[in-house]
Amino acid sequence: MKRVLLRVAYDGTNYCGWQVQPNGITVQEVLNRKLTELLGEPIETIGASRTDAGVHALGNVAVFDTETRIPGEKISYALNQRLPDDIRIQESREVPADFHPRYQESEKTYLYRILNRKFPLPTSRLYSYFYHYNLNIENMQKAADYLIGTHDFASFCGSNAQVKTTVRTITGISVERAGDEIQITVKGRGFLYNMVRIISGTLIEIGGGLYPPERILEILEAKKRTEAGPTAPAHGLTLMNIRFLAEEQ
Amino acid sequence: MKRVLLRVAYDGTNYCGWQVQPNGITVQEVLNRKLTELLGEPIETIGASRTDAGVHALGNVAVFDTETRIPGEKISYALNQRLPDDIRIQESREVPADFHPRYQESEKTYLYRILNRKFPLPTSRLYSYFYHYNLNIENMQKAADYLIGTHDFASFCGSNAQVKTTVRTITGISVERAGDEIQITVKGRGFLYNMVRIISGTLIEIGGGLYPPERILEILEAKKRTEAGPTAPAHGLTLMNIRFLAEEQ
Repeated sequence: MKRVLLRVAYDGTNYCGWQVQPNGITVQEVLNRKLTELLGEPIETIGASRTDAGVHALGNVAVFDTETRIPGEKISYALNQRLPDDIRIQESREVPADFHPRYQESEKTYLYRILNRKFPLPTSRLYSYFYHYNLNIENMQKAADYLIGTHDFASFCGSNAQVKTTVRTITGISVERAGDEIQITVKGRGFLYNMVRIISGTLIEIGGGLYPPERILEILEAKKRTEAGPTAPAHGLTLMNIRFLAEEQ
Repeated sequence: MKRVLLRVAYDGTNYCGWQVQPNGITVQEVLNRKLTELLGEPIETIGASRTDAGVHALGNVAVFDTETRIPGEKISYALNQRLPDDIRIQESREVPADFHPRYQESEKTYLYRILNRKFPLPTSRLYSYFYHYNLNIENMQKAADYLIGTHDFASFCGSNAQVKTTVRTITGISVERAGDEIQITVKGRGFLYNMVRIISGTLIEIGGGLYPPERILEILEAKKRTEAGPTAPAHGLTLMNIRFLAEEQ
């Protein structure tokens, strides 16, 4: 028996998110099925991040246990041959039997992309949120800076969430322009439900001039979802990377 | 009666190319239909570049004649509301009645994208050609430099083409790496059928070490399609821009 870690990239457009659920096909379900076929034993993966419907990933992480003799680092190649082309394993390797991707300390990096120009671009439509009005990225960065550190992010937590605490730590946020695109990069040690999308929706309101950057302090203080901005659309969000701190990959 | 110019962006994934044809839906056909609905008169567009099935565009150009009272520059907004989201007008404006996008002198810019890394990335799969092996971009650039200028490009012309002359002028080619992506940008005054894709396929062979950069001189000299490399896949190609020289837009 060994435990294998997969780094998984996917285009979330055609999936009902990561986690297996009754109402539609999910990334985890496809992975479980293809691993079961490949290895000839029932496989159930455990995911690090249960991304929502429509959210993309370059580096989500999953682990599973197997009796196979195929070396861990070869599984990526064999599995990619069976997967649909909107899911691709980026790396596979063996990890200790007690490695659990959700309990291991980690830093996740998310990227929220906003296409900010006069008209939408068809070739960007699946991977960025089109927003037509001017955005002041200096004000967005100023607001974002207030979120860095350990805070109660209750105002930035989707209402479906059932969690013991809404305190989380954000280690960095940057707001940068790259051509027509505004890129919000958020790094942290674990996130609440919809947290990055609500932060992005709130920063867009501030960037558009609806509120000054300092508004973010009132929102944090309020600890109430209705005080923050809207949840920005799923397709603008990509889970870029998960770094496990104990490993220092 | 006025002549209106459209700059058209599209994701070519789901179209059988630009030009109306019996065997599948095309970008031009959708434009003609939606313009006819919008303006209430039969509209037939004339396109600048008849891109192939699967090729994308940020700035193809089409013109049409209309009796409408809608000002030329407003048509973009009204038309975008009717178009599917994989086609978006970037600009509309009136042009002189004798403006013909294929006879007007112009410079076209094409971008061929190669995703060059260990494993494919699902979120790039529709807009770049995945190529796994190492590519020497210095050698690709050296080879590309031999193509700049006015030459007989018969070796770089798809076999279906019926043209009077295969002499064309390339005004610039650059081969650059941007992260995981190798970008071949080709500028010229008109191109032969499949020319940019055959150039790209040939440069990939040279970058991979199959031939030295000087091989490109023998290929030009031979004036024979079979001497050049393969036609690189359509989905890696994007028509970026068409600049009309008389206008100096």
